[in-house]
Amino acid sequence: MPLEIPEVVISRLPVYYRLLARIKREGRTVVSSQELGDALSVTPAQIRKDLSYFGRFGKQGRGYSVSRLAEELKLILGLDSRWRVAVVGLGRLGRAISSYPGFDQQGFDIVARYDSDPAIVGSELDGQMILDVANLEADLRRDPVEIGIVAVPADAAQEVVNALVAAGVGAILNYAPTRPQVPEHVELKQINPVLVLQSMTYHLRNAREESEGSSER
Amino acid sequence: MPLEIPEVVISRLPVYYRLLARIKREGRTVVSSQELGDALSVTPAQIRKDLSYFGRFGKQGRGYSVSRLAEELKLILGLDSRWRVAVVGLGRLGRAISSYPGFDQQGFDIVARYDSDPAIVGSELDGQMILDVANLEADLRRDPVEIGIVAVPADAAQEVVNALVAAGVGAILNYAPTRPQVPEHVELKQINPVLVLQSMTYHLRNAREESEGSSER
Repeated sequence: MPLEIPEVVISRLPVYYRLLARIKREGRTVVSSQELGDALSVTPAQIRKDLSYFGRFGKQGRGYSVSRLAEELKLILGLDSRWRVAVVGLGRLGRAISSYPGFDQQGFDIVARYDSDPAIVGSELDGQMILDVANLEADLRRDPVEIGIVAVPADAAQEVVNALVAAGVGAILNYAPTRPQVPEHVELKQINPVLVLQSMTYHLRNAREESEGSSER
Repeated sequence: MPLEIPEVVISRLPVYYRLLARIKREGRTVVSSQELGDALSVTPAQIRKDLSYFGRFGKQGRGYSVSRLAEELKLILGLDSRWRVAVVGLGRLGRAISSYPGFDQQGFDIVARYDSDPAIVGSELDGQMILDVANLEADLRRDPVEIGIVAVPADAAQEVVNALVAAGVGAILNYAPTRPQVPEHVELKQINPVLVLQSMTYHLRNAREESEGSSER
Protein backbone atom coordinates (compact mmCIF):
# COMPACT_ATOMS: atom_id res chain seq x y z
CA MET A 1 0.00 0.00 0.00
CA PRO A 2 1.44 3.42 -0.88
CA LEU A 3 2.36 5.39 2.22
CA GLU A 4 1.06 8.82 1.32
CA ILE A 5 -2.65 8.76 0.70
CA PRO A 6 -4.12 12.26 0.70
CA GLU A 7 -6.08 12.97 3.87
CA VAL A 8 -9.05 14.10 1.79
CA VAL A 9 -9.21 10.63 0.21
CA ILE A 10 -8.98 8.90 3.59
CA SER A 11 -11.81 11.07 4.85
CA ARG A 12 -14.04 9.81 2.02
CA LEU A 13 -13.35 6.10 2.55
CA PRO A 14 -15.77 5.70 5.47
CA VAL A 15 -18.50 7.20 3.28
CA TYR A 16 -17.75 4.62 0.58
CA TYR A 17 -17.73 1.88 3.19
CA ARG A 18 -21.11 2.92 4.57
CA LEU A 19 -22.62 3.04 1.09
CA LEU A 20 -21.20 -0.38 0.16
CA ALA A 21 -22.53 -1.88 3.37
CA ARG A 22 -26.00 -0.64 2.42
CA ILE A 23 -25.73 -1.98 -1.13
CA LYS A 24 -24.60 -5.31 0.29
CA ARG A 25 -27.61 -5.43 2.63
CA GLU A 26 -29.78 -4.91 -0.45
CA GLY A 27 -28.37 -8.19 -1.75
CA ARG A 28 -26.38 -6.78 -4.67
CA THR A 29 -22.96 -8.19 -5.55
CA VAL A 30 -21.58 -5.77 -8.18
CA VAL A 31 -21.66 -1.97 -8.37
CA SER A 32 -20.28 0.53 -10.88
CA SER A 33 -18.32 3.69 -10.14
CA GLN A 34 -21.17 5.53 -11.86
CA GLU A 35 -23.70 4.20 -9.33
CA LEU A 36 -21.41 4.93 -6.39
CA GLY A 37 -20.81 8.44 -7.74
CA ASP A 38 -24.52 9.08 -8.26
CA ALA A 39 -25.36 8.03 -4.71
CA LEU A 40 -22.70 10.34 -3.28
CA SER A 41 -23.08 13.27 -5.71
CA VAL A 42 -19.49 12.99 -6.94
CA THR A 43 -18.08 11.98 -10.32
CA PRO A 44 -17.38 8.33 -11.16
CA ALA A 45 -13.84 9.48 -12.00
CA GLN A 46 -13.31 10.59 -8.41
CA ILE A 47 -14.54 7.24 -7.09
CA ARG A 48 -12.15 5.36 -9.40
CA LYS A 49 -9.25 7.62 -8.52
CA ASP A 50 -9.84 7.38 -4.76
CA LEU A 51 -10.13 3.60 -4.81
CA SER A 52 -7.09 3.23 -7.07
CA TYR A 53 -4.88 4.13 -4.09
CA PHE A 54 -5.73 0.77 -2.61
CA GLY A 55 -5.09 -1.50 -5.56
CA ARG A 56 -7.32 -2.78 -8.30
CA PHE A 57 -10.77 -3.70 -7.07
CA GLY A 58 -12.76 -3.26 -10.24
CA LYS A 59 -12.55 -4.71 -13.70
CA GLN A 60 -12.95 -2.32 -16.61
CA GLY A 61 -16.61 -2.31 -17.62
CA ARG A 62 -17.68 -4.85 -15.01
CA GLY A 63 -17.86 -2.75 -11.85
CA TYR A 64 -16.66 -3.49 -8.36
CA SER A 65 -17.32 -6.59 -6.30
CA VAL A 66 -19.38 -5.16 -3.43
CA SER A 67 -18.31 -7.64 -0.77
CA ARG A 68 -14.65 -7.62 -1.75
CA LEU A 69 -14.44 -3.83 -1.82
CA ALA A 70 -16.38 -3.48 1.45
CA GLU A 71 -14.15 -6.05 3.14
CA GLU A 72 -10.99 -4.35 1.90
CA LEU A 73 -12.15 -0.90 3.07
CA LYS A 74 -13.06 -2.39 6.43
CA LEU A 75 -9.51 -3.68 6.88
CA ILE A 76 -7.89 -0.51 5.54
CA LEU A 77 -9.92 1.64 7.92
CA GLY A 78 -9.41 -0.65 10.90
CA LEU A 79 -13.15 -1.27 11.24
CA ASP A 80 -12.66 -4.97 11.97
CA SER A 81 -11.40 -3.89 15.43
CA ARG A 82 -13.24 -2.30 18.30
CA TRP A 83 -11.81 0.98 19.58
CA ARG A 84 -11.84 2.38 23.09
CA VAL A 85 -13.04 5.95 23.49
CA ALA A 86 -13.06 8.48 26.35
CA VAL A 87 -15.50 11.41 26.23
CA VAL A 88 -14.45 14.57 28.08
CA GLY A 89 -17.04 17.22 28.85
CA LEU A 90 -20.62 16.24 29.63
CA GLY A 91 -22.58 19.39 29.07
CA ARG A 92 -25.53 19.34 26.68
CA LEU A 93 -23.35 18.52 23.69
CA GLY A 94 -21.17 15.93 25.45
CA ARG A 95 -24.26 14.14 26.73
CA ALA A 96 -25.82 14.10 23.28
CA ILE A 97 -22.60 12.78 21.77
CA SER A 98 -21.96 10.14 24.37
CA SER A 99 -25.44 8.68 24.15
CA TYR A 100 -25.42 8.43 20.35
CA PRO A 101 -26.08 4.76 19.50
CA GLY A 102 -24.05 4.92 16.27
CA PHE A 103 -20.72 4.71 18.09
CA ASP A 104 -21.38 1.33 19.66
CA GLN A 105 -22.90 -0.06 16.46
CA GLN A 106 -19.81 0.92 14.48
CA GLY A 107 -17.20 -0.46 16.87
CA PHE A 108 -16.49 2.51 19.13
CA ASP A 109 -16.86 1.75 22.84
CA ILE A 110 -17.19 4.70 25.15
CA VAL A 111 -15.40 3.29 28.18
CA ALA A 112 -14.82 6.48 30.19
CA ARG A 113 -16.61 9.81 30.63
CA TYR A 114 -15.05 12.83 32.30
CA ASP A 115 -16.13 16.23 33.50
CA SER A 116 -14.74 18.90 35.80
CA ASP A 117 -18.02 19.98 37.39
CA PRO A 118 -18.20 18.70 41.01
CA ALA A 119 -22.00 18.78 40.70
CA ILE A 120 -21.97 15.92 38.18
CA VAL A 121 -18.69 14.07 38.83
CA GLY A 122 -19.65 10.83 40.60
CA SER A 123 -23.15 10.74 39.14
CA GLU A 124 -24.21 8.21 36.52
CA LEU A 125 -24.90 8.74 32.83
CA ASP A 126 -26.26 5.86 30.77
CA GLY A 127 -25.11 3.47 33.50
CA GLN A 128 -21.55 4.78 33.64
CA MET A 129 -20.07 6.90 36.41
CA ILE A 130 -18.85 10.36 35.40
CA LEU A 131 -15.20 10.63 36.42
CA ASP A 132 -13.15 13.63 37.53
CA VAL A 133 -11.12 15.06 34.67
CA ALA A 134 -8.33 15.77 37.18
CA ASN A 135 -7.68 12.00 37.21
CA LEU A 136 -7.89 11.54 33.45
CA GLU A 137 -4.19 11.22 32.71
CA ALA A 138 -3.51 8.77 35.55
CA ASP A 139 -6.65 6.72 34.79
CA LEU A 140 -5.91 6.40 31.10
CA ARG A 141 -2.26 5.58 31.61
CA ARG A 142 -3.40 2.59 33.66
CA ASP A 143 -6.26 1.66 31.40
CA PRO A 144 -5.60 3.17 27.95
CA VAL A 145 -8.04 4.30 25.29
CA GLU A 146 -7.16 4.95 21.66
CA ILE A 147 -9.51 7.85 21.03
CA GLY A 148 -10.58 10.95 22.96
CA ILE A 149 -13.67 13.01 22.22
CA VAL A 150 -13.46 16.54 23.58
CA ALA A 151 -16.65 18.51 24.23
CA VAL A 152 -15.45 21.10 26.74
CA PRO A 153 -15.54 24.92 26.44
CA ALA A 154 -12.90 26.48 24.16
CA ASP A 155 -10.74 27.76 27.01
CA ALA A 156 -10.43 24.31 28.59
CA ALA A 157 -9.74 22.39 25.39
CA GLN A 158 -5.94 22.65 25.21
CA GLU A 159 -5.47 21.41 28.76
CA VAL A 160 -7.76 18.44 28.18
CA VAL A 161 -6.03 17.65 24.90
CA ASN A 162 -2.64 17.78 26.65
CA ALA A 163 -3.82 15.29 29.28
CA LEU A 164 -5.18 12.94 26.59
CA VAL A 165 -1.90 13.13 24.68
CA ALA A 166 0.12 12.53 27.85
CA ALA A 167 -2.02 9.44 28.50
CA GLY A 168 -1.11 8.05 25.08
CA VAL A 169 -4.29 8.75 23.12
CA GLY A 170 -3.60 8.57 19.37
CA ALA A 171 -6.65 10.29 17.90
CA ILE A 172 -8.76 13.18 19.18
CA LEU A 173 -12.10 14.36 17.92
CA ASN A 174 -12.55 17.94 19.11
CA TYR A 175 -15.93 19.68 19.37
CA ALA A 176 -14.59 22.72 21.24
CA PRO A 177 -14.66 25.82 19.03
CA THR A 178 -10.88 26.24 18.98
CA ARG A 179 -7.97 24.39 17.44
CA PRO A 180 -5.75 22.83 20.11
CA GLN A 181 -2.13 21.99 19.28
CA VAL A 182 -1.12 18.33 19.24
CA PRO A 183 2.21 16.60 18.58
CA GLU A 184 2.69 15.24 15.09
CA HIS A 185 2.02 11.60 16.01
CA VAL A 186 -1.46 12.44 17.34
CA GLU A 187 -4.33 12.93 14.92
CA LEU A 188 -6.77 15.74 15.64
CA LYS A 189 -10.03 16.34 13.82
CA GLN A 190 -12.47 19.10 14.49
CA ILE A 191 -16.25 19.13 14.39
CA ASN A 192 -17.45 22.70 14.32
CA PRO A 193 -20.86 23.40 12.82
CA VAL A 194 -20.18 27.14 12.57
CA LEU A 195 -17.22 26.54 10.26
CA VAL A 196 -19.36 24.26 8.10
CA LEU A 197 -22.17 26.84 7.95
CA GLN A 198 -19.64 29.52 7.03
CA SER A 199 -18.43 27.48 4.08
CA MET A 200 -22.05 27.14 2.93
CA THR A 201 -22.76 30.84 3.15
CA TYR A 202 -20.10 31.29 0.47
CA HIS A 203 -22.50 29.58 -1.93
CA LEU A 204 -25.60 31.27 -0.50
CA ARG A 205 -23.94 34.63 -0.97
CA ASN A 206 -23.07 33.86 -4.58
CA ALA A 207 -26.60 32.63 -5.29
CA ARG A 208 -28.06 35.74 -3.67
CA GLU A 209 -25.83 38.02 -5.76
CA GLU A 210 -26.74 36.17 -8.93
CA SER A 211 -30.47 36.48 -8.30
CA GLU A 212 -30.13 40.14 -7.33
CA GLY A 213 -28.01 40.69 -10.43
CA SER A 214 -30.62 39.10 -12.67
CA SER A 215 -33.53 41.03 -11.14
CA GLU A 216 -31.71 44.29 -11.85
CA ARG A 217 -31.58 43.57 -15.57
CA MET B 1 -13.35 36.10 -9.01
CA PRO B 2 -12.90 32.74 -10.75
CA LEU B 3 -16.09 30.71 -10.72
CA GLU B 4 -14.77 27.26 -9.87
CA ILE B 5 -13.03 27.23 -6.52
CA PRO B 6 -12.51 23.69 -5.22
CA GLU B 7 -14.93 22.85 -2.42
CA VAL B 8 -12.03 21.71 -0.23
CA VAL B 9 -10.54 25.23 -0.47
CA ILE B 10 -13.87 26.87 0.38
CA SER B 11 -14.19 24.59 3.40
CA ARG B 12 -10.84 25.88 4.71
CA LEU B 13 -11.63 29.59 4.32
CA PRO B 14 -13.70 29.86 7.52
CA VAL B 15 -10.76 28.36 9.41
CA TYR B 16 -8.46 31.04 7.97
CA TYR B 17 -11.00 33.68 8.83
CA ARG B 18 -11.29 32.51 12.42
CA LEU B 19 -7.51 32.48 12.82
CA LEU B 20 -7.12 35.93 11.29
CA ALA B 21 -9.83 37.32 13.57
CA ARG B 22 -7.85 36.01 16.54
CA ILE B 23 -4.57 37.47 15.26
CA LYS B 24 -6.32 40.78 14.71
CA ARG B 25 -7.66 40.75 18.29
CA GLU B 26 -4.05 40.28 19.43
CA GLY B 27 -3.31 43.60 17.78
CA ARG B 28 -1.09 42.32 14.96
CA THR B 29 -1.30 43.85 11.50
CA VAL B 30 0.83 41.53 9.32
CA VAL B 31 1.11 37.74 9.22
CA SER B 32 3.14 35.36 7.05
CA SER B 33 1.91 32.24 5.31
CA GLN B 34 4.46 30.37 7.46
CA GLU B 35 2.77 31.57 10.66
CA LEU B 36 -0.71 30.83 9.35
CA GLY B 37 0.46 27.37 8.27
CA ASP B 38 2.11 26.66 11.63
CA ALA B 39 -1.04 27.60 13.52
CA LEU B 40 -3.17 25.30 11.36
CA SER B 41 -0.68 22.45 10.91
CA VAL B 42 -0.60 22.83 7.13
CA THR B 43 2.18 23.97 4.80
CA PRO B 44 2.70 27.67 3.97
CA ALA B 45 2.46 26.62 0.32
CA GLN B 46 -1.11 25.42 0.87
CA ILE B 47 -2.06 28.69 2.53
CA ARG B 48 -0.62 30.69 -0.37
CA LYS B 49 -2.26 28.47 -2.95
CA ASP B 50 -5.69 28.59 -1.23
CA LEU B 51 -5.63 32.36 -0.88
CA SER B 52 -4.39 32.86 -4.43
CA TYR B 53 -7.88 31.92 -5.68
CA PHE B 54 -9.11 35.22 -4.34
CA GLY B 55 -6.55 37.58 -5.78
CA ARG B 56 -3.29 38.91 -4.42
CA PHE B 57 -3.48 39.68 -0.72
CA GLY B 58 0.17 39.26 0.21
CA LYS B 59 3.39 40.82 -0.94
CA GLN B 60 6.31 38.52 -1.54
CA GLY B 61 8.39 38.44 1.63
CA ARG B 62 6.17 40.89 3.53
CA GLY B 63 3.27 38.71 4.59
CA TYR B 64 -0.45 39.38 4.50
CA SER B 65 -2.26 42.41 5.83
CA VAL B 66 -4.34 40.87 8.62
CA SER B 67 -7.24 43.29 8.49
CA ARG B 68 -7.42 43.38 4.68
CA LEU B 69 -7.34 39.60 4.35
CA ALA B 70 -9.86 39.14 7.18
CA GLU B 71 -12.19 41.70 5.63
CA GLU B 72 -11.93 40.11 2.20
CA LEU B 73 -12.63 36.60 3.54
CA LYS B 74 -15.59 37.98 5.47
CA LEU B 75 -17.10 39.33 2.24
CA ILE B 76 -16.25 36.23 0.21
CA LEU B 77 -17.87 33.98 2.80
CA GLY B 78 -20.90 36.20 3.26
CA LEU B 79 -20.13 36.70 6.94
CA ASP B 80 -21.04 40.37 6.80
CA SER B 81 -24.70 39.26 6.59
CA ARG B 82 -26.86 37.56 9.17
CA TRP B 83 -28.45 34.28 8.07
CA ARG B 84 -31.77 32.78 9.12
CA VAL B 85 -31.70 29.17 10.27
CA ALA B 86 -34.38 26.57 11.08
CA VAL B 87 -33.46 23.59 13.29
CA VAL B 88 -35.47 20.41 12.75
CA GLY B 89 -35.37 17.67 15.39
CA LEU B 90 -35.08 18.55 19.06
CA GLY B 91 -33.89 15.37 20.69
CA ARG B 92 -30.71 15.44 22.77
CA LEU B 93 -28.54 16.38 19.81
CA GLY B 94 -30.92 18.97 18.33
CA ARG B 95 -31.25 20.67 21.71
CA ALA B 96 -27.49 20.75 22.18
CA ILE B 97 -27.05 22.19 18.69
CA SER B 98 -29.77 24.78 18.95
CA SER B 99 -28.53 26.15 22.25
CA TYR B 100 -24.93 26.52 21.06
CA PRO B 101 -24.00 30.19 21.56
CA GLY B 102 -21.51 30.16 18.63
CA PHE B 103 -24.27 30.40 16.03
CA ASP B 104 -25.63 33.70 17.21
CA GLN B 105 -22.15 35.16 17.75
CA GLN B 106 -21.17 34.30 14.18
CA GLY B 107 -24.26 35.67 12.46
CA PHE B 108 -26.59 32.66 12.36
CA ASP B 109 -30.02 33.31 13.84
CA ILE B 110 -32.08 30.28 14.77
CA VAL B 111 -35.51 31.66 14.01
CA ALA B 112 -37.55 28.43 13.98
CA ARG B 113 -37.37 25.05 15.72
CA TYR B 114 -39.36 22.02 14.65
CA ASP B 115 -40.11 18.56 15.95
CA SER B 116 -42.68 15.86 15.22
CA ASP B 117 -43.18 14.67 18.80
CA PRO B 118 -46.61 15.86 20.09
CA ALA B 119 -45.17 15.69 23.60
CA ILE B 120 -42.83 18.63 22.92
CA VAL B 121 -44.48 20.52 20.04
CA GLY B 122 -45.94 23.69 21.57
CA SER B 123 -43.50 23.73 24.47
CA GLU B 124 -40.72 26.31 24.78
CA LEU B 125 -36.99 25.85 24.32
CA ASP B 126 -34.67 28.78 25.09
CA GLY B 127 -37.67 31.10 24.86
CA GLN B 128 -38.85 29.88 21.47
CA MET B 129 -41.89 27.72 20.83
CA ILE B 130 -41.22 24.31 19.26
CA LEU B 131 -43.29 24.10 16.08
CA ASP B 132 -44.91 21.12 14.38
CA VAL B 133 -42.76 19.79 11.54
CA ALA B 134 -45.98 19.08 9.62
CA ASN B 135 -46.26 22.86 9.12
CA LEU B 136 -42.62 23.41 8.21
CA GLU B 137 -43.04 23.83 4.47
CA ALA B 138 -46.02 26.20 4.73
CA ASP B 139 -44.39 28.23 7.55
CA LEU B 140 -41.08 28.65 5.76
CA ARG B 141 -42.69 29.53 2.45
CA ARG B 142 -44.38 32.42 4.23
CA ASP B 143 -41.37 33.35 6.30
CA PRO B 144 -38.25 31.98 4.59
CA VAL B 145 -34.97 30.89 6.09
CA GLU B 146 -31.74 30.36 4.15
CA ILE B 147 -30.36 27.41 6.13
CA GLY B 148 -31.84 24.24 7.63
CA ILE B 149 -30.15 22.15 10.31
CA VAL B 150 -31.45 18.57 10.40
CA ALA B 151 -31.06 16.53 13.59
CA VAL B 152 -33.76 13.90 13.13
CA PRO B 153 -33.38 10.09 13.01
CA ALA B 154 -31.96 8.63 9.78
CA ASP B 155 -35.29 7.33 8.53
CA ALA B 156 -36.97 10.73 8.82
CA ALA B 157 -34.16 12.77 7.25
CA GLN B 158 -35.12 12.58 3.57
CA GLU B 159 -38.68 13.74 4.23
CA VAL B 160 -37.50 16.68 6.31
CA VAL B 161 -34.91 17.60 3.69
CA ASN B 162 -37.59 17.47 0.99
CA ALA B 163 -39.79 19.86 2.97
CA LEU B 164 -36.88 22.26 3.53
CA VAL B 165 -36.03 22.19 -0.18
CA ALA B 166 -39.68 22.74 -1.12
CA ALA B 167 -39.71 25.76 1.19
CA GLY B 168 -36.75 27.27 -0.67
CA VAL B 169 -33.90 26.57 1.76
CA GLY B 170 -30.54 26.88 -0.04
CA ALA B 171 -28.20 25.12 2.39
CA ILE B 172 -28.73 22.15 4.70
CA LEU B 173 -26.49 20.94 7.48
CA ASN B 174 -27.42 17.34 8.18
CA TYR B 175 -26.63 15.51 11.42
CA ALA B 176 -28.76 12.45 10.63
CA PRO B 177 -26.55 9.41 9.95
CA THR B 178 -27.64 9.06 6.33
CA ARG B 179 -27.08 11.02 3.12
CA PRO B 180 -30.32 12.56 1.86
CA GLN B 181 -30.62 13.49 -1.81
CA VAL B 182 -30.97 17.16 -2.70
CA PRO B 183 -31.38 18.97 -6.03
CA GLU B 184 -28.22 20.45 -7.48
CA HIS B 185 -28.97 24.05 -6.48
CA VAL B 186 -29.17 23.10 -2.78
CA GLU B 187 -26.00 22.61 -0.80
CA LEU B 188 -25.90 19.74 1.68
CA LYS B 189 -23.16 19.12 4.23
CA GLN B 190 -23.02 16.28 6.68
CA ILE B 191 -21.78 16.19 10.25
CA ASN B 192 -21.28 12.60 11.29
CA PRO B 193 -18.81 11.88 14.07
CA VAL B 194 -18.72 8.15 13.25
CA LEU B 195 -17.41 8.87 9.75
CA VAL B 196 -14.74 11.17 11.21
CA LEU B 197 -13.71 8.54 13.77
CA GLN B 198 -13.53 5.93 11.02
CA SER B 199 -11.13 8.08 9.03
CA MET B 200 -8.96 8.38 12.15
CA THR B 201 -8.86 4.64 12.79
CA TYR B 202 -7.11 4.35 9.44
CA HIS B 203 -4.13 6.07 11.05
CA LEU B 204 -4.52 4.28 14.39
CA ARG B 205 -4.50 0.95 12.59
CA ASN B 206 -1.35 1.86 10.68
CA ALA B 207 0.37 3.04 13.87
CA ARG B 208 -0.66 -0.16 15.66
CA GLU B 209 0.68 -2.33 12.86
CA GLU B 210 3.95 -0.44 12.83
CA SER B 211 4.48 -0.85 16.55
CA GLU B 212 3.54 -4.53 16.39
CA GLY B 213 5.86 -4.96 13.42
CA SER B 214 8.74 -3.38 15.29
CA SER B 215 8.16 -5.39 18.46
CA GLU B 216 8.35 -8.61 16.43
CA ARG B 217 11.83 -7.79 15.25
